[in-house]
Amino acid sequence: MEFVQLLKSHRSIRKFTDEPLTDEMVNEIISAGLAAATSSNLQGTTVIRVRNPETRAAIAELAGGQTYVETAGAFFVWCADLHRSAEVCERNGGEFSAGMTEHMIIATTDCAIAAQSAVAAAESLGLGICYIGGIRNDPAKVTELLELPKQVFPVFGLCLGWPDQDPAIKPRLPLSVTLKEDRYDETGDEAGVADYDAKMREYYLERTGGKLDRTWSADMEKLLGKESRPHMQGYLNGQGFATK
Amino acid sequence: MEFVQLLKSHRSIRKFTDEPLTDEMVNEIISAGLAAATSSNLQGTTVIRVRNPETRAAIAELAGGQTYVETAGAFFVWCADLHRSAEVCERNGGEFSAGMTEHMIIATTDCAIAAQSAVAAAESLGLGICYIGGIRNDPAKVTELLELPKQVFPVFGLCLGWPDQDPAIKPRLPLSVTLKEDRYDETGDEAGVADYDAKMREYYLERTGGKLDRTWSADMEKLLGKESRPHMQGYLNGQGFATK
Repeated sequence: MEFVQLLKSHRSIRKFTDEPLTDEMVNEIISAGLAAATSSNLQGTTVIRVRNPETRAAIAELAGGQTYVETAGAFFVWCADLHRSAEVCERNGGEFSAGMTEHMIIATTDCAIAAQSAVAAAESLGLGICYIGGIRNDPAKVTELLELPKQVFPVFGLCLGWPDQDPAIKPRLPLSVTLKEDRYDETGDEAGVADYDAKMREYYLERTGGKLDRTWSADMEKLLGKESRPHMQGYLNGQGFATK
Repeated sequence: MEFVQLLKSHRSIRKFTDEPLTDEMVNEIISAGLAAATSSNLQGTTVIRVRNPETRAAIAELAGGQTYVETAGAFFVWCADLHRSAEVCERNGGEFSAGMTEHMIIATTDCAIAAQSAVAAAESLGLGICYIGGIRNDPAKVTELLELPKQVFPVFGLCLGWPDQDPAIKPRLPLSVTLKEDRYDETGDEAGVADYDAKMREYYLERTGGKLDRTWSADMEKLLGKESRPHMQGYLNGQGFATK
């Protein structure tokens, strides 16, 4: 159960030592990621390792000032990619059926599954990781910086490196809420969330010496009670995704 | 590197022994999954373990006759879930901003990341897994069978059990194609795909005693050269996803 325990103790790392990652290690980690399951063998993932310091600085800034994008041992942008397979389809005499929402779902889930398999590999080696959803603050700029063709979109970034901090594990909703049997039965969910709110309040208070008094419910109000990245649909459609 | 090697040798398992999985083991695996990173702590994943044999039979059939959905030690439907957090947002005085494409992306990637973390946990215990994208053949029926509310959609199924087969590892595209540096540079991609086609032809011929002569390029022509699940956009919009 050693590895299960490791996965259960995941936390994001946002501060890294200067110790470099060898290319061999990076290749092993990315290979482990891309060996994960892929829908119909599409392999709808392209990983772009960003080495150029200016590009990393630009991405750190557009992601909302996440400086660890610049300082992590390695930084990657994980892309959902239908471009490669569409080209192959056409070279083989087919006509790519562009814009299917289903194709976007398979490429996006392929990409997330591969990334998390790479993350599991990295964490098993003692590395720390942080996903960077903030790249979707300005996906058009990321597309320009990385010269992404149509049918490719940047799903998230990923920082990888040797941890230089040891943050607490953030509690999760109880399984009684998130794991259901046979049907979406909401009995007990409200009570489960109330318990979780109490736990999260304690977590934040402890972590900030009493300064931060927050609950999950309040966080969800902030997160979902307003528009979020309203440019995404237009951006994705413009890249050729999910137009039908 | 033991665990990295395990991830690199992933293959889907479609035949399982009768040996049951304990609830304790299932809970550990799902907990390890749900401990993975989640965007803004949304936890946009609900896992439904399907025990009812009739429901499993119905899902096996709509997924295209995938009988292992019925016979695996455990079968789960992994759902992207904004319903729970939207309810919480509204109970906390907010007004849920429904239909954002961005929210669908975070819930879908949360779900895929959690599932793959559970898969890594399961495989580290010697279990075999098979994702079932085929549930999207008829997402409306799955929604009805599992009584999913609006703002929840079934992303994929997952079979879990003790392997009763030992299939070969399917080769992946070379890293020279899938891992790029600084920009989406396609130099060498066509040659890399040609190498991979040769490798996949060999894989299929060997696996079928010379009967199956296929390449990845031909597979991509079949997969992308036609519409795929054209109901998905309408279904998702109807469930409240990605209308803007």
